[in-house]
Amino acid sequence: MAGDVRQPAFVLVRPQMGENIGAAARAMWNFGLDHMRLVSPRDGWPNPQAVAMASGAGRLLDEAWLVESAAEAVADCDLVLATTARVRGLTKPVYSPERAMTEAQARIAAGGRVAVLFGPERAGLENTDVALANALISVPVNPEFPSLNLAQCVLLCAYEWRRASAEVDGLRMEMAGADWASAIEVEKLAEHYEGRLEEAGFFFPEHKAASMKLTLRNLWSRMPLTSEDVKTLHGVLRQMVRWKERG
Amino acid sequence: MAGDVRQPAFVLVRPQMGENIGAAARAMWNFGLDHMRLVSPRDGWPNPQAVAMASGAGRLLDEAWLVESAAEAVADCDLVLATTARVRGLTKPVYSPERAMTEAQARIAAGGRVAVLFGPERAGLENTDVALANALISVPVNPEFPSLNLAQCVLLCAYEWRRASAEVDGLRMEMAGADWASAIEVEKLAEHYEGRLEEAGFFFPEHKAASMKLTLRNLWSRMPLTSEDVKTLHGVLRQMVRWKERG
Repeated sequence: MAGDVRQPAFVLVRPQMGENIGAAARAMWNFGLDHMRLVSPRDGWPNPQAVAMASGAGRLLDEAWLVESAAEAVADCDLVLATTARVRGLTKPVYSPERAMTEAQARIAAGGRVAVLFGPERAGLENTDVALANALISVPVNPEFPSLNLAQCVLLCAYEWRRASAEVDGLRMEMAGADWASAIEVEKLAEHYEGRLEEAGFFFPEHKAASMKLTLRNLWSRMPLTSEDVKTLHGVLRQMVRWKERG
Repeated sequence: MAGDVRQPAFVLVRPQMGENIGAAARAMWNFGLDHMRLVSPRDGWPNPQAVAMASGAGRLLDEAWLVESAAEAVADCDLVLATTARVRGLTKPVYSPERAMTEAQARIAAGGRVAVLFGPERAGLENTDVALANALISVPVNPEFPSLNLAQCVLLCAYEWRRASAEVDGLRMEMAGADWASAIEVEKLAEHYEGRLEEAGFFFPEHKAASMKLTLRNLWSRMPLTSEDVKTLHGVLRQMVRWKERG
């Protein structure tokens, strides 16, 4: 993994302008964060405009992970936070940046890995991206003028990360020997249920299937699952299938 | 006085680029601040680049006070705070942005008037400006890369003002119309799974059955389930049983 793992990865999902990627890199490095991941930047990668804008923080771009999907970008993380301007029809905790970075700090202190998702400039994250997240981050902007740009949103989260790390240095979380499930474990759990329930005819009627799948994925990602919980839930489903197969 | 006096005035001292003045206006208005004062902008006033950049926050520029000196800009204020990248050979309190805006909030609540000084882009405030201040504000940036620009510094102070004034609770839950599951709903869910899994032969071997049941009950009770989640999870299990029964 590039950079220091004792910090969150900031994941720019389908960013559009190279300048904004560069400005985001600067904003991160202003507060000591240097682990960036890029999901399908619109104009390809590397991007000369990004490099020009990042001056002084260009190393972050050189070391950034380039991936195809948001799911891939967060696969190794066990706490995924998604910044969003508007609150959606999904049941999730909504954190202030301060609370979110305090959670991130605690999780990392406990040995976990954290990703923070930032959406494309105009549209923001899509629901399928948001469904990967354990919680949302909402910046308490003026409702009459909620026009934060990408780099500003990154700046505020990075700033709160630094505040949180200064304050809770040394804090640990008691896990009773358990580990948090990683995003890839939760993803595989979601796939397992989705696959078997598809066979079982759960996603019916057809026109509701997509939203039923999203609801179920959102349910798994929102739960504070440990690796043990995930094993138990796989076991539950496997046993039901064995029962069916015994007929 | 222009704007709401129950907020600090943000004073840009000898700002250079019109674009930065416009970006500062946007950053202020993002967090509900609209009282700007300008000390001798380098390129005169009004400034078309400032207007172009401020889009949506142009009113702040129209209403900004234009003055000749920093002393004049803060003459009516009884708490003056000066942002500075480096701490100087002046004996002054140095506040974090958070502490500074908490002080500002308290002073304004007590009927006082507050100004926050921001220096020109390259050089920062001069010592004669800083000497007007009761305290300094220092943003805890990465010492290896302390390159905040004017609008970013304004953004962070405005953000902290909003945090200080809004008593923003760090967490809320976006419920999207959902309600938390009651204990009885969770209990019935646990019974449903336990019953069906018993039939399916999940709790095996016998001597482990009690602890497996406990693990599963603990899993359900530890999850932040809504009533909708509970319905979904009942539905998942019912569908698996129907699938089995179809053979």
